[in-house]
Order: sequence, then C-alpha cells, then structure tokens
Amino acid sequence: MEANKMKAAVLNKPLDIEVKEVAIPTPKDDEVLLKVHCIGVCGSDVHYYEHGRIGRYVVEAPIILGHELAGVIVAKGAAVANVEVGDRVAVEPGVTCGRCDYCKSGRYNLCPDVVFMATPPVDGAWAEYVAIRSDFVFKMPDSMSFEQGALIEPFSVGIHAMNRGSVKPGDRVLVTGLGPIGLLAIQAAKMYGVTEIYASDVVAYRRELALELGVTAVFDPSAQDVGEAIGQLTGGHGADVLIETSGNGRAIGAGFAAVRRGGRVVLVGMPAADEIPVNTNHLIDSEFDVFGLFRYANTYPTAIAALAKGGLDVERIITHKFGLDYIKQAVEMARTEKETSIKIMIYPGDVQ
Amino acid sequence: MEANKMKAAVLNKPLDIEVKEVAIPTPKDDEVLLKVHCIGVCGSDVHYYEHGRIGRYVVEAPIILGHELAGVIVAKGAAVANVEVGDRVAVEPGVTCGRCDYCKSGRYNLCPDVVFMATPPVDGAWAEYVAIRSDFVFKMPDSMSFEQGALIEPFSVGIHAMNRGSVKPGDRVLVTGLGPIGLLAIQAAKMYGVTEIYASDVVAYRRELALELGVTAVFDPSAQDVGEAIGQLTGGHGADVLIETSGNGRAIGAGFAAVRRGGRVVLVGMPAADEIPVNTNHLIDSEFDVFGLFRYANTYPTAIAALAKGGLDVERIITHKFGLDYIKQAVEMARTEKETSIKIMIYPGDVQ
Amino acid sequence: MEANKMKAAVLNKPLDIEVKEVAIPTPKDDEVLLKVHCIGVCGSDVHYYEHGRIGRYVVEAPIILGHELAGVIVAKGAAVANVEVGDRVAVEPGVTCGRCDYCKSGRYNLCPDVVFMATPPVDGAWAEYVAIRSDFVFKMPDSMSFEQGALIEPFSVGIHAMNRGSVKPGDRVLVTGLGPIGLLAIQAAKMYGVTEIYASDVVAYRRELALELGVTAVFDPSAQDVGEAIGQLTGGHGADVLIETSGNGRAIGAGFAAVRRGGRVVLVGMPAADEIPVNTNHLIDSEFDVFGLFRYANTYPTAIAALAKGGLDVERIITHKFGLDYIKQAVEMARTEKETSIKIMIYPGDVQ
Amino acid sequence: MEANKMKAAVLNKPLDIEVKEVAIPTPKDDEVLLKVHCIGVCGSDVHYYEHGRIGRYVVEAPIILGHELAGVIVAKGAAVANVEVGDRVAVEPGVTCGRCDYCKSGRYNLCPDVVFMATPPVDGAWAEYVAIRSDFVFKMPDSMSFEQGALIEPFSVGIHAMNRGSVKPGDRVLVTGLGPIGLLAIQAAKMYGVTEIYASDVVAYRRELALELGVTAVFDPSAQDVGEAIGQLTGGHGADVLIETSGNGRAIGAGFAAVRRGGRVVLVGMPAADEIPVNTNHLIDSEFDVFGLFRYANTYPTAIAALAKGGLDVERIITHKFGLDYIKQAVEMARTEKETSIKIMIYPGDVQ
Repeated sequence: MEANKMKAAVLNKPLDIEVKEVAIPTPKDDEVLLKVHCIGVCGSDVHYYEHGRIGRYVVEAPIILGHELAGVIVAKGAAVANVEVGDRVAVEPGVTCGRCDYCKSGRYNLCPDVVFMATPPVDGAWAEYVAIRSDFVFKMPDSMSFEQGALIEPFSVGIHAMNRGSVKPGDRVLVTGLGPIGLLAIQAAKMYGVTEIYASDVVAYRRELALELGVTAVFDPSAQDVGEAIGQLTGGHGADVLIETSGNGRAIGAGFAAVRRGGRVVLVGMPAADEIPVNTNHLIDSEFDVFGLFRYANTYPTAIAALAKGGLDVERIITHKFGLDYIKQAVEMARTEKETSIKIMIYPGDVQ
Repeated sequence: MEANKMKAAVLNKPLDIEVKEVAIPTPKDDEVLLKVHCIGVCGSDVHYYEHGRIGRYVVEAPIILGHELAGVIVAKGAAVANVEVGDRVAVEPGVTCGRCDYCKSGRYNLCPDVVFMATPPVDGAWAEYVAIRSDFVFKMPDSMSFEQGALIEPFSVGIHAMNRGSVKPGDRVLVTGLGPIGLLAIQAAKMYGVTEIYASDVVAYRRELALELGVTAVFDPSAQDVGEAIGQLTGGHGADVLIETSGNGRAIGAGFAAVRRGGRVVLVGMPAADEIPVNTNHLIDSEFDVFGLFRYANTYPTAIAALAKGGLDVERIITHKFGLDYIKQAVEMARTEKETSIKIMIYPGDVQ
Repeated sequence: MEANKMKAAVLNKPLDIEVKEVAIPTPKDDEVLLKVHCIGVCGSDVHYYEHGRIGRYVVEAPIILGHELAGVIVAKGAAVANVEVGDRVAVEPGVTCGRCDYCKSGRYNLCPDVVFMATPPVDGAWAEYVAIRSDFVFKMPDSMSFEQGALIEPFSVGIHAMNRGSVKPGDRVLVTGLGPIGLLAIQAAKMYGVTEIYASDVVAYRRELALELGVTAVFDPSAQDVGEAIGQLTGGHGADVLIETSGNGRAIGAGFAAVRRGGRVVLVGMPAADEIPVNTNHLIDSEFDVFGLFRYANTYPTAIAALAKGGLDVERIITHKFGLDYIKQAVEMARTEKETSIKIMIYPGDVQ
Repeated sequence: MEANKMKAAVLNKPLDIEVKEVAIPTPKDDEVLLKVHCIGVCGSDVHYYEHGRIGRYVVEAPIILGHELAGVIVAKGAAVANVEVGDRVAVEPGVTCGRCDYCKSGRYNLCPDVVFMATPPVDGAWAEYVAIRSDFVFKMPDSMSFEQGALIEPFSVGIHAMNRGSVKPGDRVLVTGLGPIGLLAIQAAKMYGVTEIYASDVVAYRRELALELGVTAVFDPSAQDVGEAIGQLTGGHGADVLIETSGNGRAIGAGFAAVRRGGRVVLVGMPAADEIPVNTNHLIDSEFDVFGLFRYANTYPTAIAALAKGGLDVERIITHKFGLDYIKQAVEMARTEKETSIKIMIYPGDVQ
C-alpha cells in the first residue's frame, strides 16, 4: 500500500461495497487522527447498503459507512489539548456547530448543521483511520475494552432514552424490541438503578439474551398480551415507562396498553410507514408523556464512567466479528440474519 | 317550595332533563354549602345529556350535571377553617382522596378515587345549592366576578396545558381548535407571557373571537396549510408548542407539521375514534415531547391571582346566559349550535 | 401484663426514660395496628432524650419516641384495603393531611398538619404495638428483613437527597459526614447509578465503613483539603454534587470548594448554630444549585424495590441491637458513643 | 480622523479613562462589524474603572470597557448568514467556545473559554465600532429602540433569574435591591406572568421607580421588617420566590425570612465580602432551593419577542445619557451618584 493510503470499505451504490485504498485523512488544527480498532455495523449502515437512502438522506456518491468506533490517537492538530497521541478513545460520531439555538440550549443532537459520520455525504469510519474534531473523542480508562468504547454509540441511545423518559430507580420499565438498541436500553435502565425491567420481542433468541442481561420477565407479543401480563406481574400497576425500540406499529399500541396512567413513553424505533394508528384517546385520558428520540447528547462521559466501573455487560450483544476485508459478508449477515446477528463488529486490523 | 328543598336540573335519561325539587345537601364536618351563583355548560354535560355516557362513565340513574361554578358560602361544617360564611368562592369540582400515589406525588388529577361533580354517579351543581369539601373552594377577591370564578374550571385546563407543555415567554404557541378550551388556552398562554400565539379553527366566528383575544394570526385549516403558513410567519422556525384542543384527527397531523424540531405538543381534545393515524416517524425524528392532558391540578390559586390582576378577558367566551328553569333550552343550544354558542352560563337565581 | 396493655419506652423528661405499661392503641377505621418488630434510634430521638426539645418542638408531656420501624399487621380498621393482617410492613411515620397546598403539589413532607411519630406531642413507636393510617404502611417482599424495613426511614433521607439533587449516573458525588444518613446517602447514590462517590468524615471508623460500602475514596477533613484532593482525583473537574450530612459549618464551606461550577449541593445536616458563614460569592459565581432537605416524600416504594432486588447493604450500618427493656442503655450509648455506634436497633420482642 | 480609525474610551489604569483613536476592528469570516448606537454603563464597568479588577479579573493593560449595546451592522464576514448589513441588532457580549461540557449541555454562560467583552483582557464596546461573532447578534424588529436593544444585556440577567427560579404565574415574587438588575428583574417577572411582585430597597427614589413599574408593594428594609410585612400582605403565606440583587448580606437574611417553606431563592447580587452569615438551618428546615446566577444563557430571542410585543418599559431605568466624549463624567456619575443614576447610556454618535 502506498504511503498515506489506507484501506476503507466504500459503498459505491446499493449492495456494491468494496474495500479499497483511499487517502488517510489529515487532521485539521482542532482534529485528531485515529487508528480505528473496531467499529460496529449499525442498522442504518445496513439500510444505506441495501436501499441507498434513509428518508431525506440519499447516497449520491461513493461513501464510507460506519460510525460506532473506538481506536487509538496517532496524530493530532496543534490546537488539541484534551487528548494525547497514544490515548485509547471512544468516538462520538456527530460534530456539531456549537452556534445554533439547539447547540446553545443543550440539544445539540438536533443541530441542523451537524456533520455526522456515515450520513450522506459524510464519510464514516469503516477504515483504518479516521479524523474527527477532538472534542468528540473521549479517553477510555485502561479497564475498558475497545469494543465497549465502540458500543458507547448505540448504548448512548439507551442512555438518552433514560434521560428523555426521566427514568429513575423504582420505575418499572418495559423495553419493546430486543435488537441492539433494546438490549442496550435494558443495560441503560440497570445503570439508572431500575430493578424491574420487562422486555418483549417475537424472537426467542433475543428474549433469552434479555434474560441473560437480567430482566425481570420477558414476553412474546405474538403469543401473549403484554399489557395484561405486565398488569398481572405488577399487581395491576402497569409499567411506569415504555421504551419502544422495535419500530413495529403494533408494538407501540401494545406498549401503550402496558403503561400506567401518568406514565411515560419513549419512542426510539422508527416504523416503516410514517403514519401509525395510535390510541390518542388513551394517551390523553391517561395523561401520558410521549417522547421522540433522535440520537443522543452528552452521554459519553456518563457511559464511560458506568462501563469503567463494571457491572454492565454491553459486549454481550456482540454476536460476530469480521476483519474489514470481509465487510461484504458482515453486512450481508446483518441484512439477512437479523434475528440472530445482534451486533457485528468490524476490525480494520486483526480480529480480536 | 318546602324548607330544605331546592331546585335542581335532573337528567333522568338521555335528552330528558327537568328542573325539580330535591333536598338541599347538608355539609359534612369538612364541607361547605354554597349558594350557586352561576354555572357553565360544559361539552361533557352536553355529551351526557345527549348520549348518557362518556366512555366508561354511564348515567345509570337520574343525575344532576354541571361542574363549572362559583357562588357564596351559606353554611360550613365545624372543621372548616379556610373560608367563612359569606365568602364568594370558585369551586374546583373534583374531590381527591389525598392518599394514593397520584395524590401524594402531586398529580391528584389522576386519583382513581376522585369524586368529581357531574361524572356519574356523582351529582353536579346545576342547582341552587351544592356541598363540597372545603379545601376545594377558593375565595375570590372582590375584583373578580362570579362568572370569572365559574370559568376557572375550563380555564384550568388551559393553565394545565401550559404547565404540561412547560410554556414560557418566547415560545411560539399554536392553539388548534377554538371552542371554550382553545379560547381559554389562548388566554392561559398570554398569562404565561407568550407573545406569539397562533390559532386555527374551521369556524370563522371562532377565529374572530381569537383575534379579539389578541392572537398573532389565525388560520382556517379547511382552506390553508397551517404548518406552511406558520413556517412563513416565523421565518421557517415553526411553532415551539402545539396545544391541540379540537379533537380532530387531522388537526393533530396538521399541528405536528407546524411544530419545530424539539418542540412540544399538548393533546387536550379527544377524538371521536380511539385510533388516529399519527406520523410517529415525524414525532421521533423531530424529538417531540407529546403530553396528554387530563383535567388539571393545582391551578386555582394561580388562576385567581391572574384574573384578579386584570388584563385577561375570560368572560369574552360567554355567549349566552340562561336561568336554571331554561336548562333544556340551554343544553339544546349547546348541542345544536356548537359553532356560535361558545360558553353558556346558567343562573339558578336571576340571570345577571 | 393486663389485657390491652403493652410495654412502651416513655420519656418523662430529659434523661428520664422508663419502660412501662400503656394501653395498646385501637386502630381507627383507616388505620392498622402493628406489632413492632424492630425500631431504630435516630439522632432526633437522642436529642429529645437529652435536651427535651428540637427547635420549635418541645417535650411538654411524657412521650414515646422512635419512628424508624417495621413490623407485622395484627389488626386493621374496616376501611383498610391495601394491606392484610399478617403482612410484614415498613412504616412511613408521618401522616399527612392530603388537603393543603404542599400535599396537593407532591411535597407532602412540608405539610403543616403532618402528624409525625415521636415529634412532640405525637407518640412514636418504641413500644410493642403502634397504630398508623394504612396508606403509610408498605408491604415488604419476603426477601426483605425487618431491619431493612426499619432502615427505609433514614434511607429515605438519602433517596430524597438524590431526588433533590437530581443525581444521575455519571455524577461525581461527594458525601460529607458519615453518620447513618451519610452512609445511607452513599447507598442511595449507588442505587441511583452513581459510580464515583467520595466521602469525608473526621472519624476513621466511619471512613472505613464508607470504604466497605464501596466508595471511590475517603477523606479526613481534619487532615487534608477535601476540595483539593477531589480536584486531583477528578482531573480538576471537581464533584458534580455535594450531599452534606455532617451539619458542620466548616464542612459546608469545604464541600462548596470541592464542587465544580454549575454543581449542585444538598444540605441535610443541620448545624448547631443557625447562622453559618457561607461563601455566597462562590455560590453565585459558580452558579450552584443549593437545596435544603426536610425529611422525604414518595420514597418508600422505590426503597422497597431497590432493597428487594439486593445489591445494597443498608444493614451494614447497624452496629448494636437492644431489647426494649434496655432502651436506657441504648439511648445512652447513642448519646455518648457517637463515633462508633452508627445505628442502634431496638427490639420490643426478642433481639434477633 | 484617519481612515480605519475610530474613537474609543480607553481605561489606561484605575480612574484614568480617555477617548482616543484606535483601529476599527476588521470582522473575521464569521463576524460582523457594528456601528454602535448606544451602550450602557454597567456596575462592572464602574468597578473596573475604580478598582482595576473584579475578583480574578485584573486590568493589566489599557482596555475598552462596555458590553451592553445595540447598533447597526456595517460589514460582515463571508460566512455570516443570519444577519445582513443594515440590520439593527442587539449584541450578546460573550462569545462561547461551543465545545466544552458547559456549552454542550446548554449552560454556555459557564464556558471557561468564553470571550466576554470588557472582561480583561478582552476589549468592550465603548467605541464607535465593534466586531463580534455573528451568532451573538440578534436582529431587532423595527418596533424596538436601540436603547431597548442595549438593555437586553442586563434584562437578560432578570430573565435568567426567572429561569433559574422556575418562576411562573401565580408565584409571589420578592425582589430585593432596586438597582438596574432589580428593576429589570421586576419587568422580567411581569413578562413571566407574575402578578404579585414585592420589592425592597433602602433608597426612596428606587422604590418609587419600582412602584411606577407596577409592583404590588415596596418596602424599606432600613425601616421595616420585610418578612413580616410580606407575611401580612399575603395572609401569612410569604413569598414563593426571592430574587436577591442587592448583594447586601443582611438583605439575603431578610429575604430568606420572607420566603415560604419550599420556596426558591435566586442570588444575583454579589456581596463585598466572600463569607456572609446565612441561616442554613432555616434553608434546610424550609427545604429551600437556592440558585446562584452567573450572567445568562439563551435569553436574547425571548427578550426580543417580549420587548417587540410592548407592555414592558425597560427604558424607564435609563436616567442619564452621555456622548462618548463625556465618558469620564458618565462613569464618575455612575460611581458617585449610585442611588439616583440607575442606568446611564453612552452614545458614540449623537445623543438621542
């Protein structure tokens, strides 16, 4: 390979992904250059791979995907003071403007000018190296693995869900949908001191994973009435908070039925159809709080503190590992074996 | 009329309402007896009158309706210390248990054991006298009229909507639906320091009333795209908060489209159908907060302080006044002339 | 002993406490009668024992002290539906009015009409039996011990401190003062997902207990600068939240110095003197939030859920156990051996 | 005057201020250049003028003071999109980094890297022109005067005080200290819908101004017990919120005594001495929330919306106007006639 070149997985067009040589990025004054250690495959990556677009974001030119990563700093710009070359860091993949109303009011996840990895036309990090503004990399303690670092990105969605839903110890939390986000939301709930966590998914393997992660009970919504079951288990009380990650329209309805009056609902999973029938009368009469969720904000330091302490097993959701050269197989597996490949991790260097 | 008897409007069965003599209630130790000065006709009263039920509440025996009232205390139980005989008071018509989790956590409007006037089988106050626990009557300053006192009940819904939506000065607020609740929500928004208030309704008369009450602009959703219109008026910003009072399924959708990312939605009006198509993807992607609303809590002292100060014109929504003997005409008007009879006030004594 | 009589520890006047026979209380319609299993000695009990008063509360007639208890229901009034005879329950010892502004807004701990055990002239529960309104007893799961149940009362102060300070995972929390409240606040912080907990006390034994409970580091404020030490341990960041339980004026000052800008302070311990020198400029310039704390509200269900789950070791603070007959020795020990007798538990029946 | 030169008031050393020619700043790519229309004299300016320092900020080289300004944009950098040349704008004088934890969490007023006008060594705007990053200038509607625009800076402190104290309609608010900040806090309270506002100051002239601005009652703390007086006026209720702007240690104590249990206190004025005797027992027993306040964040759009609407009379606090050439007299007046010169406005061009 040429000097200043690196391997990267480039999506040329839907279903056409190849590993090729591209230029190693040069960090700007306020940026760091990372050697990527590992990087996850996210549902959005798979969606771009398969369909070439997500809503208003369209892949119009070859793009490098991937945005869940950790690595080691190998170079840094002159103005970087918060990290050093050699630091092992987790990466928050959206660089915000810091100047709009959203940024100034603490909701930088809604920044209209965010530059977010692997969201067209911005390149991601399925590559050997990546550059990013230094305030979006976070040094990891030695006790943390690179895999934990890479998983902070999807874990952040779970943490943000807890914040959106004001989840506290004593809340009974129901998580519907047990893909990576649902399983990490369960761990976020544990991190927030929740002791009664219920989980539902139609796939037995995923329910088993949830049980391994310590939930109180699991339900199969294709075989039982989740609201009724939770009602029985809670003495008629119901769930205080619903975290909906399945994006299944019926799951939203079933979830509503499981929540007590005055309860909270956090909607994370996006249904395939825009319009979903919602029992608004129930929402109104029960005086629910329903919160949409878009990415996350201010979660990395908290996640690192929690993971450094131990007691959470986020890596349990990693079901497969691939070298970068096998990216095609990895993405195809994610696309076609959705029920059993929870989180696939890519290694630009050697697979660990 | 016999001693200890009073006139009251009794709904025997749907569409069958009559004024007859019933016993004057005797206040318990912790209750007061009020001479009712005036009392509004609420949409729920009309619904019971017409259909004999609202959802799970069914009129199974003759019932006195009415729950928006003010009057004068004429007797009180031995344990009553907060008010005196002769006091002019506004009445909060739901007596809560004070002992359940909802009551103890400040959300007494969700108390499962609430005894709420004119909700079957509890009698209301379309009558000359009514008894109620004394902590639910609030002394009015001399500067307040009885009509203002009676209107605190529906006004409280508007105030509660502001609290649910964390409305603050600087918010751009859109109120959809301009019946009594919508028009009072506009005044609640003014009370909360809001300077940009938008309002929509299909009825021209109601839009005119909103303009009289000082809103920034009104829209006819049957003739224009409300979201687009607000976008233009706000330089593309959109509304920060939507207060939906119409209960019209399409209004919810149109309202969503008018709200900026990160905005808040308070749903007040209950659609006729339970399930409404809702653009949940928009809700999620925009990270909305959507709040149901059920009645109100802790609003009366605030309402009295605001109305005593002046500057709000809640009485502007009173379009008609009837003596109690004309209750049938009053309710029929409310039932059949919904567009122009905004709030009808009943007077058990002389019409003022 | 006569029928309908029980043993109780009666404080006749300061330092004069005796166990004698008194009438077993008869539960009212909405009350339960408990056989007390165990009941703690609180600092306030000791203060009444020694001084006969705490601020505005004065012991003017013989009184039974004690308010940290758990037991078994042996009788109940006709209207009691939430618990059954035979239930093992923890007791929240303040019965609120449910009707004042504080109660109605969820801050019932500030209810001016609260009837609080062992606060003159209200009797407490250093006795074989006690009656209390049934909405203030909470059934414990079998996995919980009576001792845990009795400790929910002081633990609730710790939980309320977390709520007052909006403590969340990721917060660095400093607890100053390691008496029962401080040690339980540490456990409350763990329950709320906090991973970095710092603790300070001048007594080595108490610091050792804190370390056993899993804090990150302990400090001796008589030997080191706590603010400086925390600064070093946190990379200059400082504590996010200070929970001050010592009531030592200098601890408040030292604590302030350990908190980062924008941090939060919860003041729990009450200094002996009313006026304490406070660096208000530092408070203002740092934009601190400082929260007073008075008792607690809505903590019992949360505490039971957390204790039932396991992982917290609240009983670790029990250093001594006495039968009710030895109440004098117990209270004298609490009075004179403050440094090493953290929590003393009284058993009206056999000491476990 | 040379091309590219302007007049500016330069503080060479304490008490030595002169108007001289300096270079007109050149706006960077993301900056605008303003022609200053008017600019206020702030207490901090006077303090630097007199003492050459405020706490850790020391005037070590000649500096231009002034940071309360409005003007017209006369040039802009290539990247500026939010405003145009010719726009009349109000200026928020602290440019934040947008990248630190404080900025990212919405509390940019605590940004350690803020570049704040007239805080050594950063120059302010007592000058004909000033350059600033464009996201900190806010276009004013035609209905607003430049004076209103300049006053948004101190008014923002009042607005931030309302936000810090969660002030809502129905709150009884006491403002202690009636200098510019206190008088503007009164108007902020009105803007937030507060109808009962109490105010105290030892200076009769200032109390009269407060009455003109519409407060409910004023008190002279040198002649009466403010807490007692407010108790009487509120039926024993007390103030819900105290906004302390005097920086007088005794005012803090007297203010505490006026606040009801569970009330809130916002401390704005900084006492001359760091340590002030505070009744922490009262704070704790009353479960107060006490909030420090440092500058403000996210207030300008709200302030502009409120001022554009009318109904607030912030300009009423302007007592004197001077041309820039008379800066020495202006500052001396502010220094020596504190009681009657509330807000002095400086005009680099003609005095209006």
